[in-house]
Amino acid sequence: MKKIAIQGTTGSYHDIAAHNYFEGEELEIICCPTFEEVFASVRKDSRTIGMLAIENTIAGSLLYNNELLRQSGTQIIGEYKLRISHSFVCLPDEDWEDLTEVNSHPIALMQCREFLNRHPQLKVVESEDTARSAEIISRENLKGRAAICSKVAAERYGMKVLQEGIETNKHNFTRFLVVADPWQADELRGHGTPKPDKASIVFMLPHTEGSLSQVLSILSFYNINLTKIQSLPIIGREWEYQFYVDIAFGDYLRYKQAIAAITPLTKELKILGEYAEGKSNI
Amino acid sequence: MKKIAIQGTTGSYHDIAAHNYFEGEELEIICCPTFEEVFASVRKDSRTIGMLAIENTIAGSLLYNNELLRQSGTQIIGEYKLRISHSFVCLPDEDWEDLTEVNSHPIALMQCREFLNRHPQLKVVESEDTARSAEIISRENLKGRAAICSKVAAERYGMKVLQEGIETNKHNFTRFLVVADPWQADELRGHGTPKPDKASIVFMLPHTEGSLSQVLSILSFYNINLTKIQSLPIIGREWEYQFYVDIAFGDYLRYKQAIAAITPLTKELKILGEYAEGKSNI
Repeated sequence: MKKIAIQGTTGSYHDIAAHNYFEGEELEIICCPTFEEVFASVRKDSRTIGMLAIENTIAGSLLYNNELLRQSGTQIIGEYKLRISHSFVCLPDEDWEDLTEVNSHPIALMQCREFLNRHPQLKVVESEDTARSAEIISRENLKGRAAICSKVAAERYGMKVLQEGIETNKHNFTRFLVVADPWQADELRGHGTPKPDKASIVFMLPHTEGSLSQVLSILSFYNINLTKIQSLPIIGREWEYQFYVDIAFGDYLRYKQAIAAITPLTKELKILGEYAEGKSNI
Repeated sequence: MKKIAIQGTTGSYHDIAAHNYFEGEELEIICCPTFEEVFASVRKDSRTIGMLAIENTIAGSLLYNNELLRQSGTQIIGEYKLRISHSFVCLPDEDWEDLTEVNSHPIALMQCREFLNRHPQLKVVESEDTARSAEIISRENLKGRAAICSKVAAERYGMKVLQEGIETNKHNFTRFLVVADPWQADELRGHGTPKPDKASIVFMLPHTEGSLSQVLSILSFYNINLTKIQSLPIIGREWEYQFYVDIAFGDYLRYKQAIAAITPLTKELKILGEYAEGKSNI
């Protein structure tokens, strides 16, 4: 049985992503209130795997998680892309005309803005988690209250789904990273895992003309493809920038050579993990 | 008098940024509940200027605002970087030992996590806005409740500041964009505004090896410096990526030539605005 630390509660999108990624395996889910505690769980027990959202197509990158990851010393061993679809749910004996308030995580509320605009009678109240909103309404039998959460959470907490797919933009997906203790990474990756064809790296560059173009040119000479790039100013070090880059490659040796080739041109280059291109439910 | 549409209420960080950017000018602030309504205000009255957060060093890019900006047809006419410093505030006749709950925007709460961890007796409740938390506690005389907001908001709503600078990371700043109707941009920019030495552009590239490296190499040949780069996958168009790039230049003609030189290699290149490097209170 695998132990997976997630941020959020049972029925949350993290929980769904963990079960989809480790499809068919028996899992013990460790629910953590914060991302820091996800990493703390992995540190405390090196057999625990962490799962954390890293970017969403609507809300953007979770830069804070990038930074936690960089500092954690854990390795990325996989990724999973989950299509996010929100449902509007209430207590089983209630219906549209009973509802006066809706609870959910602020990001989920933002993603359902058009739906909420069509229902101005609902008071919109933020909560800390999509699934937990459903859980609390169910457990405390809070009449008149709806939640926005996944269908899985609705089923889990015995709530009635009044409408599915209420997110404004259907191209809403979240990319999750699977992280582990570097000493356990190979074993936890499991047998039969495809060979790595992707890597996440982070490095700094001097703030001079062309420094990034040189690094990317070298990667291109080595047939390495970029799948994501994000710059991050380092405040207090005004002349340097930090870059988070995801790269894809067909030839592992060529990838290693490319990293060796760009290292002298960068500062503090760190490989956050090498893994197989993500499974997805999209 | 200038009319400035902001997201949030009086005393919010948007309000502070607007007053700092237009220092010494008389302003009429139009408070909008959402970023969509900021753009709607600019559309409705072409003399209205919009002000919107675009990135924060801790929380990351507001990709949604990038997208709203791209679709809005408005032009960026300026930028402002604001150091974000949170205060812990309560009703004037209360003190530490009276407080049982703290209200603020989820991002602000996240940014003060270490402070909150040191005060576990406080129930942490999210609200939609930092300044509005203070306003509500003050107006409704809610005993036992603290807010996390700016010092400006505390003063505005007659709240007592118990502790300043409670954010975990002092390198916390938000970059705001000043946007306007393109036909009014030159006039609204105002006299005496420094010449543009920065531009924000967005373009698409085929998902092929080296396509970004070519574009950046050309920019580098024209002595154009990157100050920000961010890729964004375009879902549903799996082989293309969208890039948001901020560039800085010394020579306006050279910049125009560089844009002409990269245009044939990109798709749907759009200049979101040309403006002077941001004022800042950092």
